[in-house]
Amino acid sequence: MDPTTPSADLYQIIHRRRDVRAQFTGGAVAADSVTRILAAAHAAPSVGLTQPWDFILIREDATKQAFSRHVAEERAVFAALLDADRATRFSDIKIEGILESSLSIVVTYDSDRGAPAVLGRHAIADAGLYSVCLAIENLWLAATAEGYGVGWVSFYREAFLQQLLGIPEPIRPVAWLCIGPVTHLEERPDLERHGWRSRRALETAIHHERWSGPDD
Amino acid sequence: MDPTTPSADLYQIIHRRRDVRAQFTGGAVAADSVTRILAAAHAAPSVGLTQPWDFILIREDATKQAFSRHVAEERAVFAALLDADRATRFSDIKIEGILESSLSIVVTYDSDRGAPAVLGRHAIADAGLYSVCLAIENLWLAATAEGYGVGWVSFYREAFLQQLLGIPEPIRPVAWLCIGPVTHLEERPDLERHGWRSRRALETAIHHERWSGPDD
Repeated sequence: MDPTTPSADLYQIIHRRRDVRAQFTGGAVAADSVTRILAAAHAAPSVGLTQPWDFILIREDATKQAFSRHVAEERAVFAALLDADRATRFSDIKIEGILESSLSIVVTYDSDRGAPAVLGRHAIADAGLYSVCLAIENLWLAATAEGYGVGWVSFYREAFLQQLLGIPEPIRPVAWLCIGPVTHLEERPDLERHGWRSRRALETAIHHERWSGPDD
Repeated sequence: MDPTTPSADLYQIIHRRRDVRAQFTGGAVAADSVTRILAAAHAAPSVGLTQPWDFILIREDATKQAFSRHVAEERAVFAALLDADRATRFSDIKIEGILESSLSIVVTYDSDRGAPAVLGRHAIADAGLYSVCLAIENLWLAATAEGYGVGWVSFYREAFLQQLLGIPEPIRPVAWLCIGPVTHLEERPDLERHGWRSRRALETAIHHERWSGPDD
């Protein structure tokens, strides 16, 4: 990283950040780190200033065990959808570190907050959900800056998690995030290292003035 | 900010970031800043490493004028939903800086990328959309670090934008972002300064082990 780049810290963190599954040490997350991480998430932009997110901090083993069993079932559901080659490749890939990480944070979305007249949501129903994801990225970057790893687990059914954590309608869980100290962060994403998928070149994602086909 | 806090730059940027409407100067965004900002967005985590986002950079006046007219119409649609008190308050609030900012970036979501077997999306259809929002937050923080303001315009119909920019199905526009130099960033969000809505205390958003009602 060029040291003259403005706010090199931000860029270092953005490019160092990884989705962690296998590198959790099991160590604790410091209380003041948790506070700074959640404050960073809570400072995200949100449609109509609704701040429609909530954070459920989970440390109890029984909850993590129950979630872990459900995720294992969903892993099998996904595996059954794959052809033989992909299934073999998938079998080598660890998809979560629920039990190895000391803290889990479930981030939720409350569509009722600020409703009915949410400024900026009348034409785009998903805008509130988008806000929650902006908060999640802030959380992820902050945890990375604090020296922790974060892993987003998405092999679950929302209804299962609503029941497990007593989340009432219409509130939706958006993410289960595993957080904790790590031995290291890998330089390359797990899915790339395991040959599941390669990263796209940035150039292919950039268009000028109008959409141009991916092969233009 | 406590100088001993790790990565103070990140936290300064996260807490300084604003959704900008009225403070654009009309100046240009430096080309190397654009590259770093897009690289930051492109480094976001994504479900199944699909990187399902694209970035359409828009500088042409005709496109911005057409979008601006559409947004004005949607502003009127929203205003008509409000009671008299909210309508008065809303009338004072500027909701976009499309013409005053020199660069617009439309961020899109391609649900076909990596499909059908997207690792981590079989149980949560929206997971790909979530990835795009993580990229948007990276973009927003990077632009803030580079000294620019960003404003997310969400008063539009997706179908209008698809047609305006020639975006083919099933690709969805997720955000129209206005970017440019600003006179300053406000300390408080516009909607709070204009009395539309106050920010929540972080404490009200934190739950332990299970969901607890907002008033628990």
